[in-house]
Amino acid sequence: MLWIRFKDPAGCVQIGEIRAGDVFLEDHRYSFEEVEILPPTNPTKIVCVGLNYADHAEETGREPPSRPSLFLKPPNTVAAYNETITLLPNIERIDHEAELGVVIGKRCRNVLEEDAISVVKGYTCVNDLSNRDDQRKEQNWVRGKAFDKSAPIGPFIASPDTVPTDAKIQLRNNGKTMQNSSIDMMIFNISELIAEITAYMTLEPGDIISTGTPAGVGPIDHGDIVEIEIEGIGILKNKYKK
Amino acid sequence: MLWIRFKDPAGCVQIGEIRAGDVFLEDHRYSFEEVEILPPTNPTKIVCVGLNYADHAEETGREPPSRPSLFLKPPNTVAAYNETITLLPNIERIDHEAELGVVIGKRCRNVLEEDAISVVKGYTCVNDLSNRDDQRKEQNWVRGKAFDKSAPIGPFIASPDTVPTDAKIQLRNNGKTMQNSSIDMMIFNISELIAEITAYMTLEPGDIISTGTPAGVGPIDHGDIVEIEIEGIGILKNKYKK
Repeated sequence: MLWIRFKDPAGCVQIGEIRAGDVFLEDHRYSFEEVEILPPTNPTKIVCVGLNYADHAEETGREPPSRPSLFLKPPNTVAAYNETITLLPNIERIDHEAELGVVIGKRCRNVLEEDAISVVKGYTCVNDLSNRDDQRKEQNWVRGKAFDKSAPIGPFIASPDTVPTDAKIQLRNNGKTMQNSSIDMMIFNISELIAEITAYMTLEPGDIISTGTPAGVGPIDHGDIVEIEIEGIGILKNKYKK
Repeated sequence: MLWIRFKDPAGCVQIGEIRAGDVFLEDHRYSFEEVEILPPTNPTKIVCVGLNYADHAEETGREPPSRPSLFLKPPNTVAAYNETITLLPNIERIDHEAELGVVIGKRCRNVLEEDAISVVKGYTCVNDLSNRDDQRKEQNWVRGKAFDKSAPIGPFIASPDTVPTDAKIQLRNNGKTMQNSSIDMMIFNISELIAEITAYMTLEPGDIISTGTPAGVGPIDHGDIVEIEIEGIGILKNKYKK
């Protein structure tokens, strides 16, 4: 099952279902072109995981961590499917990072690994945009990771049964494949991440855990069209300008 | 002028004014005991500043930074005046950090230093609780700074004209003065912080900038009562338990 959050032609925010490529609200069918696609949730926070694929840790020249390396993206970072994103001025390098986003369905704290999947609403695509100029110079990656629109998300939430445990995750920049891996290559799996994060903080419905990126991160330039595709979920597409 | 956010006896959330120690809603007077005091805002994010007093940088053995050192506390960190806070289990050391909080009044981005005060609603007290066990081991201070209830805030918002530019900032643990400084000892002042932060991110009404702590941070134990007092604002009080 695939859900989508959108503004209907009357301007109301709705949660619809995707069937055969169209948007359904109850029995009414909208075409994709008729509706304004919104980010799939309004998260109070996005909890991100760094270096969670061994091949990406290797390309950054760092050791894979012994426990999940966490950082935060606040609500100002959220951007929608198809939104054109203006890159920060005077920054040499902003990179794309294709990631599987875990959408939380239930308010939770201190979740055990064996119960973790019960708090998951579904999965979505996230682009964890990274301003490398500042990230390199900061203790906490605020300028580097928490700038406005640094988390394009969506457009779909796929229920867990829709997404294979070894789903392919790919990123294409202007049609060229840059990242190409499988979500079963994560160092810490989704249940381990939920248990670790909720040992410290409450997750709210709609919050997102962005589970880390595989190898192949690279810079985004003016005019680029970046697509993230995850098997069983679909394609997140955004255009970038300076 | 001093504002307070509270739940009235009918259960409605209200913004009142403090006059002569009582809470006024229009012309109705409530006593402090009658109302449930809420955090002064519902921030979408708290942007915190590390090492912003030279004497605190010295006590941590680090150099004062060349630009503001930023980190984030998400909405799960907010705690109210008088709330009893349960300390994280199995953590050796959680420290208090008295800080001046800047409450944002207007949605803003790319604010110039000379215009910065125009986006400020007022000032409040913040305790930037810090889990040192984990903070020491993390790149980004998520377990260290973003755990539930790690930001007691309030109870008042004081309008900028109420707070002297050299207002005293003090913290007492069980009546003993631990931190005692003045807000004019900040390395980066409020206008510089607003300009720097909004170069990267939009601040929303109700968001808070926590401007760093002076020397004298120290551990909190079971049963402690911690009070933060800032001249012109008032006293934030919380009790702690294990």
